[in-house]
Amino acid sequence: MIVILKENAPKEQVKALLAEFEAQNLTIHYSKGERSTLFGLVGDTAHIDMEKVLANDVVADVRRISEPYKAANRRMHPEDTIVEVCGRKIGAGYFSVIAGPCSVESQSQMEMVAESVKASGAAFLRGGAFKPRTSPYSFQGLEVEGLKLLSAAKKATGLPIVTEIMSENQLDEFEDVDIIQVGARNMQNFRLLKELGHCRKPILLKRGLANTIEELLMSAEYILAGGNSQVIFCERGIRTFETCIRNNLDISAIPVLKRQSHLPVIVDPSHAAGNTWMIQSLSRAAIAAGADGLMIEVHNNPPAALCDGAQSLDMPQFAALMTDLKRRVEFEGLELQG
Amino acid sequence: MIVILKENAPKEQVKALLAEFEAQNLTIHYSKGERSTLFGLVGDTAHIDMEKVLANDVVADVRRISEPYKAANRRMHPEDTIVEVCGRKIGAGYFSVIAGPCSVESQSQMEMVAESVKASGAAFLRGGAFKPRTSPYSFQGLEVEGLKLLSAAKKATGLPIVTEIMSENQLDEFEDVDIIQVGARNMQNFRLLKELGHCRKPILLKRGLANTIEELLMSAEYILAGGNSQVIFCERGIRTFETCIRNNLDISAIPVLKRQSHLPVIVDPSHAAGNTWMIQSLSRAAIAAGADGLMIEVHNNPPAALCDGAQSLDMPQFAALMTDLKRRVEFEGLELQG
Amino acid sequence: MIVILKENAPKEQVKALLAEFEAQNLTIHYSKGERSTLFGLVGDTAHIDMEKVLANDVVADVRRISEPYKAANRRMHPEDTIVEVCGRKIGAGYFSVIAGPCSVESQSQMEMVAESVKASGAAFLRGGAFKPRTSPYSFQGLEVEGLKLLSAAKKATGLPIVTEIMSENQLDEFEDVDIIQVGARNMQNFRLLKELGHCRKPILLKRGLANTIEELLMSAEYILAGGNSQVIFCERGIRTFETCIRNNLDISAIPVLKRQSHLPVIVDPSHAAGNTWMIQSLSRAAIAAGADGLMIEVHNNPPAALCDGAQSLDMPQFAALMTDLKRRVEFEGLELQG
Amino acid sequence: MIVILKENAPKEQVKALLAEFEAQNLTIHYSKGERSTLFGLVGDTAHIDMEKVLANDVVADVRRISEPYKAANRRMHPEDTIVEVCGRKIGAGYFSVIAGPCSVESQSQMEMVAESVKASGAAFLRGGAFKPRTSPYSFQGLEVEGLKLLSAAKKATGLPIVTEIMSENQLDEFEDVDIIQVGARNMQNFRLLKELGHCRKPILLKRGLANTIEELLMSAEYILAGGNSQVIFCERGIRTFETCIRNNLDISAIPVLKRQSHLPVIVDPSHAAGNTWMIQSLSRAAIAAGADGLMIEVHNNPPAALCDGAQSLDMPQFAALMTDLKRRVEFEGLELQG
Repeated sequence: MIVILKENAPKEQVKALLAEFEAQNLTIHYSKGERSTLFGLVGDTAHIDMEKVLANDVVADVRRISEPYKAANRRMHPEDTIVEVCGRKIGAGYFSVIAGPCSVESQSQMEMVAESVKASGAAFLRGGAFKPRTSPYSFQGLEVEGLKLLSAAKKATGLPIVTEIMSENQLDEFEDVDIIQVGARNMQNFRLLKELGHCRKPILLKRGLANTIEELLMSAEYILAGGNSQVIFCERGIRTFETCIRNNLDISAIPVLKRQSHLPVIVDPSHAAGNTWMIQSLSRAAIAAGADGLMIEVHNNPPAALCDGAQSLDMPQFAALMTDLKRRVEFEGLELQG
Repeated sequence: MIVILKENAPKEQVKALLAEFEAQNLTIHYSKGERSTLFGLVGDTAHIDMEKVLANDVVADVRRISEPYKAANRRMHPEDTIVEVCGRKIGAGYFSVIAGPCSVESQSQMEMVAESVKASGAAFLRGGAFKPRTSPYSFQGLEVEGLKLLSAAKKATGLPIVTEIMSENQLDEFEDVDIIQVGARNMQNFRLLKELGHCRKPILLKRGLANTIEELLMSAEYILAGGNSQVIFCERGIRTFETCIRNNLDISAIPVLKRQSHLPVIVDPSHAAGNTWMIQSLSRAAIAAGADGLMIEVHNNPPAALCDGAQSLDMPQFAALMTDLKRRVEFEGLELQG
Repeated sequence: MIVILKENAPKEQVKALLAEFEAQNLTIHYSKGERSTLFGLVGDTAHIDMEKVLANDVVADVRRISEPYKAANRRMHPEDTIVEVCGRKIGAGYFSVIAGPCSVESQSQMEMVAESVKASGAAFLRGGAFKPRTSPYSFQGLEVEGLKLLSAAKKATGLPIVTEIMSENQLDEFEDVDIIQVGARNMQNFRLLKELGHCRKPILLKRGLANTIEELLMSAEYILAGGNSQVIFCERGIRTFETCIRNNLDISAIPVLKRQSHLPVIVDPSHAAGNTWMIQSLSRAAIAAGADGLMIEVHNNPPAALCDGAQSLDMPQFAALMTDLKRRVEFEGLELQG
Repeated sequence: MIVILKENAPKEQVKALLAEFEAQNLTIHYSKGERSTLFGLVGDTAHIDMEKVLANDVVADVRRISEPYKAANRRMHPEDTIVEVCGRKIGAGYFSVIAGPCSVESQSQMEMVAESVKASGAAFLRGGAFKPRTSPYSFQGLEVEGLKLLSAAKKATGLPIVTEIMSENQLDEFEDVDIIQVGARNMQNFRLLKELGHCRKPILLKRGLANTIEELLMSAEYILAGGNSQVIFCERGIRTFETCIRNNLDISAIPVLKRQSHLPVIVDPSHAAGNTWMIQSLSRAAIAAGADGLMIEVHNNPPAALCDGAQSLDMPQFAALMTDLKRRVEFEGLELQG
């Protein structure tokens, strides 16, 4: 961390500030120039509040040199982390596809879709029981009933299930869930993240629509710091000025996350695109860029879907997509799970 | 709502779609052109899921004409709403300033700041007991103890209190709070919003960093639809490409919200700026643009603040600011509360 | 400028790098820590190419401490610059309103609008002769004929004229223009900026839709570095994720530009809003935030305007607006020009 | 195009508006509801100025249904366009790599790099003679001398050359250039685009940092409307809120442009990334997503580069990259040119 002092900062106050840092076991490198004076702080600076330093009268600016995340940092953990669930692996060369409808609607639907996506090569079944909807007048999900239908589909097909949690209150209800998803809008719901740090299930952490990659890493840090080391990142498109598509899939998030962290990264092309015709192209790009998996919306009858029908593939479309993607997973030397 | 059909859409399917809309008591205006055919839907379209319509094979595009919010819409409620708390009014010509530290730190701090901001003209005391922090290693607030210190400061000074809630679990603990704040990161925490719809306290709803004004209105709709009509909007800066300031105060949100909705709008210049030197300029602009109030961070000793020190005014700075702002509130013909 | 070295950077290469900087008359402050080593460069660093430093094998990161602009920097020129044109001043307490149609359409139009805005209190007449249009099928302006109509209106009313240049080729044709406007899309047309540095007319430099304030300052630097010290900044809204308005007026650009630079700043609420109903609110905010002037679109018959009719005030609307704004300019202690 | 009328719009005025559209040979579909009345316009609406319609007193809103671009539209030209230059093809299954330094620096440099990239499989040589730099104090290119060095390198190696034009003034100087590049900052330099419409060379049109895909298509339309049908799009990253990378490569621009237009699309991973370590990942993604080519910066000695050294591969790195990319081009069934 580098602290830049104001011109003509009174010596007494500067000394007091330096003493404060020394008391925190930080080594100080002081550097006085003609126009500007600065010092570098060396040691464990992750706990330093930059805002607080900046509030000091003698400080002109503060810059962080090292990353503020530790447990999620590849420096601290050079090997790729593999998240393993019910015998399926994600990360470090193992590639998994999560598929299913946006929302759980009925038992027959879930069983039909689960059977179909399994046959096509999906490793996990997704389905929303609790739905975060922009409008209070939209379908909000089957809630606890939806979780039961997911469990039934899991029992019928053997596919482990992935579903979204909305609040730390719900953890008990999620006992039968295999991977707990944190949605984009909850990426910085810190109370939820803290509780997930204490549970022993893998967490699929979606990036918020306008959250930086560093913020995503810091949210993972909340979970890891609590003792849960099984976090999977999910890039699902970011909000920009562009209006002709719903969100812009941030393809560069894949190499950045892989370089900065050891945790697996999957991509959700369905939410990024908001339509079906772009899913193949984005899925291919994600695999080529180094993703460890994909999460794709599949519905038995998209025009009748209670949620996100416009972006849901039907079952034959998904089967065709998987045929294409399998060739690509193999080309990359990855091992498809499922 | 306008539905644009694909070229050469099969008549049978189009008929089925039209029948579906008629079953929802919507009037249909069909319009067939040479290259494109479209129809307008008239009636209560707030319940229609655009995604679902778009998922239909014969549909090329769907556009919403009327706003998807109803209770928050000025069309439905042409008069300005006044939120009244402990004898202080916000909205329709009544202007209130909320002031206090980012986080509650100690009893002496809260009493000192509360006395001071009251003397300077603030109508409400703010202070965070539960702090949403990007890093798990940062100070997370005094939590329940912080709420007690806020209550004590209220008792000592008579200033009603405003503080942020993090989860629907906490509602019981917030009984003594006068205005419950929903933070930017929770603007789309729909479970929290639903619960707040059932409580009988005014809600200060902050706009998310990258949420559209329509999404903000829809989040208010969650609270209003639940039966709680006391919602105050808070614009606090949006996330853009600009890097030299923390967030861009969206000054146009004030006239837009005032036009589209009847609910009061306040502005938080402290979080937008992320520094102290811009607060006067932004506060002045907010008053001139039509805001109903301001929320400003004030600390007894900013360089020692446990949170957001860089953007906190000290008490004399706040007093000087209020002297300036009072003249402006009067110039606008507003009635300062406090 | 701070250069952070890679861990285990070979001494030989570091030495070579340091020698390179010393050869540029920079003083080096070297600071070696346990995990990271860095050095600060003191002296005239505006000429250093950060990219080039970053390309060095031993360099992990580079951060600029001091601003890369010099002539536009308030540090180098603490007093406010006043731009004076035909007896009207802009900056340092002098406030000017520029008004007129988006595009010059006819002699009768220009004379009618010029007379009217002059009577209402405008100090300058604007009007586009060359129009940058997104579509090649839209009206592109009357071009040289438009410049003549502007000159005629100036002769008839005495109002100095402001109009947009599209290319460095046109400078000869702009001899009779009083303030040359650089449009948002040309803010980084560096060949044009260089030529404008050699001319002796004031330049109204509009901020690009997605350009940072630092980039705007650097574009001004091009003009100033060429010897032309009369630059006026114009904030006209930035492009963000918000879709319900055309652009977001960046109100914070006013205090930032005023702090970082000595040059005057005006605001164009018409292009930011893209409608007429928001103009009063944004104009009021701009004055309160510290702007030195406003540029407002006024048309004799907006529904018949060949360009930007939706955002043009008609002449009575502008007169009413000016009555309101005059009170506000006076309240701020500014001297209205015209 | 759909025009939504205001409630209680006077019949006379509505009639006048309808008459205006009929006079433009547009068919009108009128649709009157209880609360809102609207009409659809069918015919050639590309010439209609939405702003003008919106300025009409009786109009509440206007929405475009069909795209405003015609010549660039795939509807008008269903087959992929192939741009052919000196025997190399781009588009419709032909894949080309353009490589070379950011800026032309010397004859020895250009010959060395040209030989090397040719040997590695590049089909075109790039190099900037005129450099658009944010700072007036940065290296601005060798200008006309740079063009001569490019020609010499072309003569020596047979590689056709690609270089950036800055102004319509320069067209004569660009006679020996094979593909004229329009830089991101000039994407809406409409005078330049118009002139390029009259020349007979292929144009590489880079997307602006914050320009929508529709705006990019409209800029191509300027060139096509002038009679030049050889336009190649180049996606080079967009500006967003993310700060840890320079720009976000918009991978979805590839499928969108391919669907909406018949023109080829290439990707510039170097400018998007702003570093070297991300180039492989982004290049792979671009090929998989359907790009028709890549433009990559290669320098003989990146740390000594006068421009953009941090993102330039050295020659062995490029050779290694090409080995990887050739396998991928082949996997996609594309034919590598060169």
